[in-house]
Amino acid sequence: MFFASDNSGPVPPQVLEAMTRANAGHVAGYGADDLTLSVTRRLRDLFEAPEAAVYLVPTGTAANVLSLACLCPPYATVFCSPTAHIHEDECNAPEFFTGGAKLTLVGDSDRMTPETLRAAIEGEETRGVHGPKRGPVSITQLTERGNVYSIDELRALTSVAKEYGLPVHLDGARFANAAVRLGVTPAEMSWKAGVDICVFGGTKNGLMGVEAVLIFDTAARSSSEAVALQHKAAEFEYRRKRGALLFSKHRYLAAQMDAYLTDTLWHDLASRANARCDQLVQGLKGAGLRIVNDTHANMVFFEMSRGAHRAVMAQGADYHLWDSEDGPDESLAVARLVCDWSLSPEQVAQFLDLVRAAA
Amino acid sequence: MFFASDNSGPVPPQVLEAMTRANAGHVAGYGADDLTLSVTRRLRDLFEAPEAAVYLVPTGTAANVLSLACLCPPYATVFCSPTAHIHEDECNAPEFFTGGAKLTLVGDSDRMTPETLRAAIEGEETRGVHGPKRGPVSITQLTERGNVYSIDELRALTSVAKEYGLPVHLDGARFANAAVRLGVTPAEMSWKAGVDICVFGGTKNGLMGVEAVLIFDTAARSSSEAVALQHKAAEFEYRRKRGALLFSKHRYLAAQMDAYLTDTLWHDLASRANARCDQLVQGLKGAGLRIVNDTHANMVFFEMSRGAHRAVMAQGADYHLWDSEDGPDESLAVARLVCDWSLSPEQVAQFLDLVRAAA
Amino acid sequence: MFFASDNSGPVPPQVLEAMTRANAGHVAGYGADDLTLSVTRRLRDLFEAPEAAVYLVPTGTAANVLSLACLCPPYATVFCSPTAHIHEDECNAPEFFTGGAKLTLVGDSDRMTPETLRAAIEGEETRGVHGPKRGPVSITQLTERGNVYSIDELRALTSVAKEYGLPVHLDGARFANAAVRLGVTPAEMSWKAGVDICVFGGTKNGLMGVEAVLIFDTAARSSSEAVALQHKAAEFEYRRKRGALLFSKHRYLAAQMDAYLTDTLWHDLASRANARCDQLVQGLKGAGLRIVNDTHANMVFFEMSRGAHRAVMAQGADYHLWDSEDGPDESLAVARLVCDWSLSPEQVAQFLDLVRAAA
Amino acid sequence: MFFASDNSGPVPPQVLEAMTRANAGHVAGYGADDLTLSVTRRLRDLFEAPEAAVYLVPTGTAANVLSLACLCPPYATVFCSPTAHIHEDECNAPEFFTGGAKLTLVGDSDRMTPETLRAAIEGEETRGVHGPKRGPVSITQLTERGNVYSIDELRALTSVAKEYGLPVHLDGARFANAAVRLGVTPAEMSWKAGVDICVFGGTKNGLMGVEAVLIFDTAARSSSEAVALQHKAAEFEYRRKRGALLFSKHRYLAAQMDAYLTDTLWHDLASRANARCDQLVQGLKGAGLRIVNDTHANMVFFEMSRGAHRAVMAQGADYHLWDSEDGPDESLAVARLVCDWSLSPEQVAQFLDLVRAAA
Repeated sequence: MFFASDNSGPVPPQVLEAMTRANAGHVAGYGADDLTLSVTRRLRDLFEAPEAAVYLVPTGTAANVLSLACLCPPYATVFCSPTAHIHEDECNAPEFFTGGAKLTLVGDSDRMTPETLRAAIEGEETRGVHGPKRGPVSITQLTERGNVYSIDELRALTSVAKEYGLPVHLDGARFANAAVRLGVTPAEMSWKAGVDICVFGGTKNGLMGVEAVLIFDTAARSSSEAVALQHKAAEFEYRRKRGALLFSKHRYLAAQMDAYLTDTLWHDLASRANARCDQLVQGLKGAGLRIVNDTHANMVFFEMSRGAHRAVMAQGADYHLWDSEDGPDESLAVARLVCDWSLSPEQVAQFLDLVRAAA
Repeated sequence: MFFASDNSGPVPPQVLEAMTRANAGHVAGYGADDLTLSVTRRLRDLFEAPEAAVYLVPTGTAANVLSLACLCPPYATVFCSPTAHIHEDECNAPEFFTGGAKLTLVGDSDRMTPETLRAAIEGEETRGVHGPKRGPVSITQLTERGNVYSIDELRALTSVAKEYGLPVHLDGARFANAAVRLGVTPAEMSWKAGVDICVFGGTKNGLMGVEAVLIFDTAARSSSEAVALQHKAAEFEYRRKRGALLFSKHRYLAAQMDAYLTDTLWHDLASRANARCDQLVQGLKGAGLRIVNDTHANMVFFEMSRGAHRAVMAQGADYHLWDSEDGPDESLAVARLVCDWSLSPEQVAQFLDLVRAAA
Repeated sequence: MFFASDNSGPVPPQVLEAMTRANAGHVAGYGADDLTLSVTRRLRDLFEAPEAAVYLVPTGTAANVLSLACLCPPYATVFCSPTAHIHEDECNAPEFFTGGAKLTLVGDSDRMTPETLRAAIEGEETRGVHGPKRGPVSITQLTERGNVYSIDELRALTSVAKEYGLPVHLDGARFANAAVRLGVTPAEMSWKAGVDICVFGGTKNGLMGVEAVLIFDTAARSSSEAVALQHKAAEFEYRRKRGALLFSKHRYLAAQMDAYLTDTLWHDLASRANARCDQLVQGLKGAGLRIVNDTHANMVFFEMSRGAHRAVMAQGADYHLWDSEDGPDESLAVARLVCDWSLSPEQVAQFLDLVRAAA
Repeated sequence: MFFASDNSGPVPPQVLEAMTRANAGHVAGYGADDLTLSVTRRLRDLFEAPEAAVYLVPTGTAANVLSLACLCPPYATVFCSPTAHIHEDECNAPEFFTGGAKLTLVGDSDRMTPETLRAAIEGEETRGVHGPKRGPVSITQLTERGNVYSIDELRALTSVAKEYGLPVHLDGARFANAAVRLGVTPAEMSWKAGVDICVFGGTKNGLMGVEAVLIFDTAARSSSEAVALQHKAAEFEYRRKRGALLFSKHRYLAAQMDAYLTDTLWHDLASRANARCDQLVQGLKGAGLRIVNDTHANMVFFEMSRGAHRAVMAQGADYHLWDSEDGPDESLAVARLVCDWSLSPEQVAQFLDLVRAAA
């Protein structure tokens, strides 16, 4: 009954098998091996983006901050939700990799809206050089509070960004879970919705530690901007190396992604995790408990008395309270449950039994 | 016949087996899992350093630059050889992670001497705040030109550093190969020789991508400096996260290192690679060819006519010329051969046959 | 009738006279001249801080960000008001000079309170290395919205900081105006109130471009922390040079500060500016207009219809609307009036006449 | 008899007069005042560059490092002489402002040659992303060892840079002294010779602390690169503010530059300083002493016994030995003499008398 995180479960056997297959003979290092080249092509196919620059990096933070560094000069500001991973969970890595850019927090919830985004953008670059220049808009899909933007909502945000000429970064650490929930293709949830640089997460969805970054040729419609894509790609490669994030034995990153792309494993793993979350939501609602996030994929935030939480945890359920741990038994507290691909329906059922007994 | 690099071969089966064993159930992320804790203890034991702070990172560059960032303020300078990996092969990562420190190149060869090091140190911090403050001394063992410092040579360098109160970093990407060559223990080649922060490389010696960093309590003899170790350890942890280098699924780094430490695998792999290099050196000398590096572990630089190199490469030997590729057939060119653990004696013999035929 | 800023007026004749006096013969550069040494002593005397490290820098932003860089590692966060100059008006300079630290905005007004500060501090360093480490508290006195903290209010804030072991920076760009308003000494408004590094502004109070930074020996009560002061002072000097902010012809900075300290010029200039502001406040209140800032020194924010503002500006009054310029004549808009030392009572009276006619 | 530096003398009366004239009434801040606009136009006229972007900054280091930051991404390297001010005398400011770029030292003397420059350029960007990308070429005119590049020599260097597509920065801290020596116009010694960004120094030639930076439209011949100039200019403005280097009371910088441009004061001051240096060189040669720099403007390096140096210094001559201060009286040591505009022929003659008596 482990719901504390989706980066704590095992990887599926296909991943280890692919790594084992890749473990033969000598191959070129630093991403010049055939497997990496093949995976690059497969990612372009998956995203219907034949010209995209594609890179593999080992952590989600790496994927985010290398992307932002290519989009945001040090004297600019990134627009993001106050709950964004780049703001709350990356220990100033965005500030570090951009060389000192700022993060402007948009609105006061996990979901930006066109209105809150526009207000935040309007608030910057109004004081000449005294405040930061407007920089990229960073959207997290799904959000750190478990919500999924619809395609229309994504488009509405990227439209505002485009209106101001600002590029769009998508933090897709849980890209697969969101795409499965929406029933859309990767292309529909990225460049077709106005995203310029997309992180296609693997680590939270069953890989050991690989994220793909796709730099789209969305700007390539005019010749001068085509140069921009080429420039960003070169810049990404230098920044990845300079960030100590270029693997010499790159084939082991590629092998994981290869398994992920084979037989739509990425989709299957996310479907499993989402199904467990559906089961949870249904069960919690059935128990009369309040669900905090109104949409969900593989994460649910729900409210229950601290006493009940304590009873459930005491019997082996592993998850975090989002509100303070302290407080009387009868006080309400929100908890976060995250499902990874490896959870079984039985584990979820067992957890729901505990909740029903405690609530 | 692959001699181009020691980061292009496969990993030994023990590594994959350990990763497979580790791939079960849910465990805490970010290094709080039992396997990481166990590996930390084992590394402390191996280095006879019960108080050392120990960290795992995925690349050699990461290990080096996080270490240097903890030792070198942005207004200081690192002393290193002009052939050091941190200068030639890390694309400004030391400058990036230190926040803009400088590298002062010591002497004009791969091996620093007490004399060249002293001269370089004396040359800095002579102009008040106009030049950089003196910072750490970074030693590469074995060097990028294939040479091994003796323990006496290491001690002579660290003594100079201590004389000026400067901390010492050891880039041990090929630590195992050097220790095997010298027949010394890890402790003897690190803190007992005056090293303050040591990189214990795994990636070039058979792991997929793991390096250990050990911060020793060498400074802990007085109470005020004991604080320093604690402070450096905390700083390393923040810098690792901020550098996008903290793995959430840390167990897969730990599993590799666990295999490495079991049954002295690290020592056996390096012994194998060194033995292949011995075989090469003996064969090349037998063929009357000049060996450039006067000591060696798993790398040899040798001189042969370009025509002969071309003939050997044309028959499938994979390695790099260190001098320019261009030049007439009869001109001499130095080549680098690097042996990894997976080379067989037969492959080396086959290569030597080609050389003898061509030379 | 210029109320747009206090950095747009002329300097008093004493400043130019002091610069002219200093303009004789050859003297040592970079702050080693006698005049700089004398000014250093005089500042220590003024602040009753015989051990303080004292530096002159040319801009207020320089004074703030060099101070913060000495107090805040790149993986930490600075606590400040959302209206702080360091957040709104320094184009990411704090992020730049600290090497990528974050700013955590405290509360939602220009004045932090012990409660909002405590809440902000409690919100950070709760996620291990995932979020930033807690860093310095930065207080602006007087605030960018024209308010003055009382000594008790200052003490309450610094007490919270001390409780968490956090150092305190005071942005005193308008230090003199605040001290005059409170009727306290520089020592009372700085280290006696718990400030560790204080900016004593000159530029907004009649100098061409000089701010003093004082690093107090507040931490010097134990021997180990005495080292800290020495260390911070050395660090400041390196950072000032590295920041391209060390003047070679330092005597011209020192001469300005020398004039400022002579015959309490700093106090007189601030008294004049504050008196003009009092006159404004009285007049505006008399005209039945709402004053927004409930305390004031040399700045007042007041509300009037846009039509009236337009009429007043059309007759030559120079100031900024704080709210949007756009809107119908009958809509209310807040304006900022700032008084510098050079304004005459007649100019203020003339402005008030215009206001009364328009309001 | 002060020859230690050209930043230790007084400013000419015209400078103080211009500052006094500028000290009237309220004017817009941050460079939006009429005097700054006028000075901008005058600098464009002087450099025959009607489209150039022109900025004033307070220190030579600021002028250099802001320029380099606009030309050099953090993953690139700047090519410069090992004696360049940016390498030896700016305490890592170039590394800081570029965000961690490297400096590649060209050759082993103060003067780069096309051959040494080409060799240094060829040595970088040969290792893919492992080494830094090639960045700008930085030329110092006159050099830190007192030598002047001829226009042909400058052109030869910039031609090599252009061949590789690299931009050229000119550190002109002593631009006036060099231009006077060569008898050329500012345009001839800058953009007409292939310079893209030029620092026109004032501080070492009689101003209190002002340098102009000119960003030329040399790249503007094609429409896409015309955008580049515009982009660089905007970038410079953001970087200047972010660097804490934008003066609010900008008129006092502009006033100094205004005096400098009036009645060719800049040229007259440099002519005076150069004439004193000619007098020195003639006298030293007449005394049979060896001159080290084979060309000169306002600096001369000469060799004399340490005993003689000691005798001369004991009688009041103020200058620095370039070699170590230590050594027996009879040993030779090189000294640096720098002439500023304010030295009189009598002071030089008096010094030469002392030398002749001691040598």
